[in-house]
Amino acid sequence: MANMSKTTRILKHKNLFNDVFKRQYSDFVRGKATAAANLKEPVLFHGEPSGPSVVTPIPGPRSTKLINELETIQNTGAVQFFVDYDHCLGNYLFDADGNVLLDMFTQIATIPIGYSHPRLMAALRKPENIASFVNRPALGCLPPSNWVNKLKDVLLAVAPPGLTNVQTMQCGACSIEHSQKAIFMWYQRHRRGGRPPNEEELRSCITNEKPGTPEICVMSFHKAFHGRTMGALALTHTKWVHKLDFPQPNWPIAPFPALQYPLDEFVRENREEEDRCLNTVRELFEKWRLKGNPVAGIAVEPVQCEGGDNHATPYFFQGLQDIAKENDAALLIDEVQTGCGSTGKFWAHEHFNLREAPDLVPFAKKMMTGGFYFKKDFKPTEEEEGV
Amino acid sequence: MANMSKTTRILKHKNLFNDVFKRQYSDFVRGKATAAANLKEPVLFHGEPSGPSVVTPIPGPRSTKLINELETIQNTGAVQFFVDYDHCLGNYLFDADGNVLLDMFTQIATIPIGYSHPRLMAALRKPENIASFVNRPALGCLPPSNWVNKLKDVLLAVAPPGLTNVQTMQCGACSIEHSQKAIFMWYQRHRRGGRPPNEEELRSCITNEKPGTPEICVMSFHKAFHGRTMGALALTHTKWVHKLDFPQPNWPIAPFPALQYPLDEFVRENREEEDRCLNTVRELFEKWRLKGNPVAGIAVEPVQCEGGDNHATPYFFQGLQDIAKENDAALLIDEVQTGCGSTGKFWAHEHFNLREAPDLVPFAKKMMTGGFYFKKDFKPTEEEEGV
Repeated sequence: MANMSKTTRILKHKNLFNDVFKRQYSDFVRGKATAAANLKEPVLFHGEPSGPSVVTPIPGPRSTKLINELETIQNTGAVQFFVDYDHCLGNYLFDADGNVLLDMFTQIATIPIGYSHPRLMAALRKPENIASFVNRPALGCLPPSNWVNKLKDVLLAVAPPGLTNVQTMQCGACSIEHSQKAIFMWYQRHRRGGRPPNEEELRSCITNEKPGTPEICVMSFHKAFHGRTMGALALTHTKWVHKLDFPQPNWPIAPFPALQYPLDEFVRENREEEDRCLNTVRELFEKWRLKGNPVAGIAVEPVQCEGGDNHATPYFFQGLQDIAKENDAALLIDEVQTGCGSTGKFWAHEHFNLREAPDLVPFAKKMMTGGFYFKKDFKPTEEEEGV
Repeated sequence: MANMSKTTRILKHKNLFNDVFKRQYSDFVRGKATAAANLKEPVLFHGEPSGPSVVTPIPGPRSTKLINELETIQNTGAVQFFVDYDHCLGNYLFDADGNVLLDMFTQIATIPIGYSHPRLMAALRKPENIASFVNRPALGCLPPSNWVNKLKDVLLAVAPPGLTNVQTMQCGACSIEHSQKAIFMWYQRHRRGGRPPNEEELRSCITNEKPGTPEICVMSFHKAFHGRTMGALALTHTKWVHKLDFPQPNWPIAPFPALQYPLDEFVRENREEEDRCLNTVRELFEKWRLKGNPVAGIAVEPVQCEGGDNHATPYFFQGLQDIAKENDAALLIDEVQTGCGSTGKFWAHEHFNLREAPDLVPFAKKMMTGGFYFKKDFKPTEEEEGV
């Protein structure tokens, strides 16, 4: 492909996408139209189009022109087409070329109840919400008067059972970054066993030196995706395009179970596979402890989404929780992708019948804000101890 | 302080803040009232209070109650008091207890033109902007049709001279994270000298292993503040409360000049001090190269803000740019705090008469969005090369 121009390559890629998409799509639409005619489904969104309508290749001429313009300003490698968001409604997305698409992907699964939902549009028009956007509250220093009620009525009202604390963040990656930091603070506080940090620790950490900067780590899984900032990226092992050329810590990575289907035909094999993975987790705890770089926590997705729709049984997650406890380590279940109802329960890990709540549960995407739920013991107290 | 309850300690801290604040504040207000009476200053914001009014201790009883409630949900160590943002106007902040404060701090310097500015309030009410907030565009995949124009008319219209590319981000820390990643990609691409990444590099990076995961680093300065996610935190060296207990890479840290004032009386001493710092930067480049962990870039603030209002002369920054070029490394000037007009030029580094633009300029805060400007050569191309 060396002789192809960037634009030609983009278009080749886009047209491939387009061909596959249109073929799958028209099959789907045909099915849906029949179903709709048969069931006389109620319209969920007033004014929603009666069906999709594709009038140009995708990306169409206007999107292609915009991609070329954008390419002079920033990387467009992932751009599919441009969208008229103020026309989008319910399940339908309107592109810049007048194509109307039934959207199965909802902005990388971040829209929980459809485009331009009238209640959300109304909420955004409320003066107190407009004031929040314009006045950019520094939430950690000067929170708004209604902050406690908002946390209670919104985020804590849907907290995973057993978790009563929550910290908000702006996005999924930051939610992982700071829940990881909460793990490290908690782990070191326990190691100090109630002793406040000493002068040497307080001084050395400023310049990334021991002992204030400890050698501790978080265990992640092969094919995991937890985000793309440096701390979250350390736990991410999906595509090279996310990882190449970045200095990253050498932290332990365990295998995630590769189950065989149908599940009821492979009960024994799958149990063996999950035991193999759990045993490796145990071994890695031991190996990293011997290295003098102990594992402070495990980060795991309830379903590996980006990594290939990989599932494991409740047995596996129960086992992970047990191993974490045996090793005085935290269990972080990353619900950025799976949370907010997409698995039939509000939080995917509610399917696992864990003995107790996971220690930390980061969220973002469909929650329409970032953050993480956590157990009380993970609330930082260092600024008191160190005074 | 071991016997004090958390609440007592908070209140002690808050009351100290309050005493100092009120004393300085009433002096200031007295001065301002006199100045206003003398000058008959025009009112900048229609409806702005004629002056501050403090009617309770700060935090007042309502804020104190809310702090205690919030403490059951999350850490409140940094909370000063609660705010009624929908009452805030212009230069005045309204707290939850009816106190009206002249705000010198503007939400950690993030509000460029006052609270509830009528033009910003009007912008937020526009249907296309409401649709943007509600529909959460995945900007990298499906940008809105007006995206290119917004980048051109807004962010590129105020780009630092010589920088024509921009990438948006949600906050300052993420802007540092991803501009740092742009440095690493650029550095390794140059090291490969045009050769596409090979199979081994593409495979090994997925599990944080060499050669796809290189040992390269970014040089920062003592007393620097660049943010609190793991990658930005690696460059931050201010307070232990930001750093303690986190595993962080061993990257080089150079001294930032400690100038003596008045400048015109210490010309020789300050030149020597800046030369000392520049020489250390040179030595660190050499030292880390010999370690096999070369420095891919330098990150520096034009003014160290959080670190103590530390300034250096144009000579120092010109020297940094020269040293970066001699070492095939990038120069990142972090304008998160200093950008958007707060030093008398739109970007603080415009004071430095650099030979050419810095390679990357992250921004956030008063820009009311995050992101970074960069030279064309820093646009990632790896996803093409690796295909």
